[in-house]
Amino acid sequence: MRANRIPTEEIRREPAAFDDRVTADGRFGRAAEPGRFRLVVSRACPWAHRVVVTRRLMGLEGAVSLAVTDPRQEDIDGDPHWVFTEETGSPGDRDPVLGIHALREAYLARDPHYDGGVSVPGLVDVDNGHLVSNDYDRLSLDMATEWGGLVRDGAPDLYPAPLRDEIEALGADVYRDLNNGVYRAGFAPDQAHYDAAVAGVFARLDALEERLAARRYLVGDTVTMADIRLFTTLVRFDSVYHGHFKCNIRKLAEYPALWAYARDLFQTPGFGDTTDHDHIRIHYYYVHTGINPTKIIAAGPDPRGWLTAHHREELGGSPFGAGTAPGPVPEGERV
Amino acid sequence: MRANRIPTEEIRREPAAFDDRVTADGRFGRAAEPGRFRLVVSRACPWAHRVVVTRRLMGLEGAVSLAVTDPRQEDIDGDPHWVFTEETGSPGDRDPVLGIHALREAYLARDPHYDGGVSVPGLVDVDNGHLVSNDYDRLSLDMATEWGGLVRDGAPDLYPAPLRDEIEALGADVYRDLNNGVYRAGFAPDQAHYDAAVAGVFARLDALEERLAARRYLVGDTVTMADIRLFTTLVRFDSVYHGHFKCNIRKLAEYPALWAYARDLFQTPGFGDTTDHDHIRIHYYYVHTGINPTKIIAAGPDPRGWLTAHHREELGGSPFGAGTAPGPVPEGERV
Repeated sequence: MRANRIPTEEIRREPAAFDDRVTADGRFGRAAEPGRFRLVVSRACPWAHRVVVTRRLMGLEGAVSLAVTDPRQEDIDGDPHWVFTEETGSPGDRDPVLGIHALREAYLARDPHYDGGVSVPGLVDVDNGHLVSNDYDRLSLDMATEWGGLVRDGAPDLYPAPLRDEIEALGADVYRDLNNGVYRAGFAPDQAHYDAAVAGVFARLDALEERLAARRYLVGDTVTMADIRLFTTLVRFDSVYHGHFKCNIRKLAEYPALWAYARDLFQTPGFGDTTDHDHIRIHYYYVHTGINPTKIIAAGPDPRGWLTAHHREELGGSPFGAGTAPGPVPEGERV
Repeated sequence: MRANRIPTEEIRREPAAFDDRVTADGRFGRAAEPGRFRLVVSRACPWAHRVVVTRRLMGLEGAVSLAVTDPRQEDIDGDPHWVFTEETGSPGDRDPVLGIHALREAYLARDPHYDGGVSVPGLVDVDNGHLVSNDYDRLSLDMATEWGGLVRDGAPDLYPAPLRDEIEALGADVYRDLNNGVYRAGFAPDQAHYDAAVAGVFARLDALEERLAARRYLVGDTVTMADIRLFTTLVRFDSVYHGHFKCNIRKLAEYPALWAYARDLFQTPGFGDTTDHDHIRIHYYYVHTGINPTKIIAAGPDPRGWLTAHHREELGGSPFGAGTAPGPVPEGERV
């Protein structure tokens, strides 16, 4: 996500610049082949995090490799850019597979005249270094439903056909009020826009608290895309949205059901093991100089709270339904 | 307190510019006489708040009148200044008793060549408009101990002679790590200074949590100056120090004993009834543009939490010892 400067009007995400689809059958022109594509992400970014969770739950780590950028974007030609650095594990400040320093090089490989924003996640074709897609939602859905034979045995159904309408209806509310709402609060150009955004954030959290009091997952009784979409915002709430984005009516930890729900997911393979609290804190506080000119990175809260008992098993449900949990995180991707 | 810009080095409070003492016996040259002095404060300022609490507990509202500035400081000659405005109850943007718009006029009346900082609280001589003292600690102590016949019947002993060493020893720790520590965190010039300050803040809160688990008040078993000094920082913690000053390891509300202790004081006459949550939030977020350039004022947390049951009576003690609670807040001073 590209959201590093305070816009002059209310924040509005740009549509994905590239949204070519990759599927097992290649019916959109690109077939999912093991090793053909590389997923460039920031561990800080909630939109990229959705794809990272999906990839791991579906067991696609071997099929599509992962490239992690530095949480500190680098100023290039006056814009902050996602880059690879020695400090975050890229020898010579370049991604070892793609050979690039800044993700924008993959955008420019795809279109030498491209002059729009550069965002993560970015799926890159290893063969020619071209950016294939930065459409985080489509990438998640396609990995969940369209990568056919490449997914692991026991991969869950994250997007069950009978539940899709409900998942999308809920997702629209969660997107507007929370996923994007926290950004509208944090980058509000004036008090009125802030007040409206923050009211929406907490009205939605209140509604979700009620919904989750008696059910373990958002839709159905297994983990679905609805939970992934909500989780990547909740896991950033107390460490960056609460203070840095001024969403401080309550902490997530003050919502009993939501906080237990979020911990339940965190402790489920694929969620907490793909969350890097340091990258999150460092990125938000360091990069958004329009709202944090000192770049000082706030210390709290203590992430060990995420590991405390949640007792959500008592509500029934099972995270992966007829499927199984993913195996250990591959060496080299541990956080 | 004057702490509105980010200093180039670690924040250090300036010593009081003027510290003439007012006592019942006039032995320092000025005698406490009813109506002779006016106390200029900001409801936002924790240092001024100490004097406001003391004045009310001692029943000095009739003896020394109160002038409340706008929480939004005004830029005058490039510096932010405490001013009186219509919006906060001063007709014609002037204090009706002193006839001044900016507190600095009282400093300049006292010393036409004065060019130092201007801070609240300021005790002003109504007869000539001169600033008498901006020494918040001495003002509090003198009102607690030296205003003799002017204090109300049943006024408590806020500074019992046998406990003074303990009050001062504890006060020095609380001052360094908390009262001033939160400012050192909030205005830290770099990450290392911030990290050190915030560690001190939470180490001190942890120690106080332990101290207050089994005792109702900090020193002895009644309210003393030690409690007043701590309270004015605690009551600002979750609304401004936690987010705006990045003291976000925990909220005050996450410390069971400290939070109950703070609510107990808040619900004791003299504490909550002199606290203006709106002035606090508005001042800090609006004025410190070095750390909040947008001036957007964060909405939370919900101040009604301060009114919830605390059960601290079970620990024994009695707030005013052999004394009594102050009566109602005078008309015109209600918050």
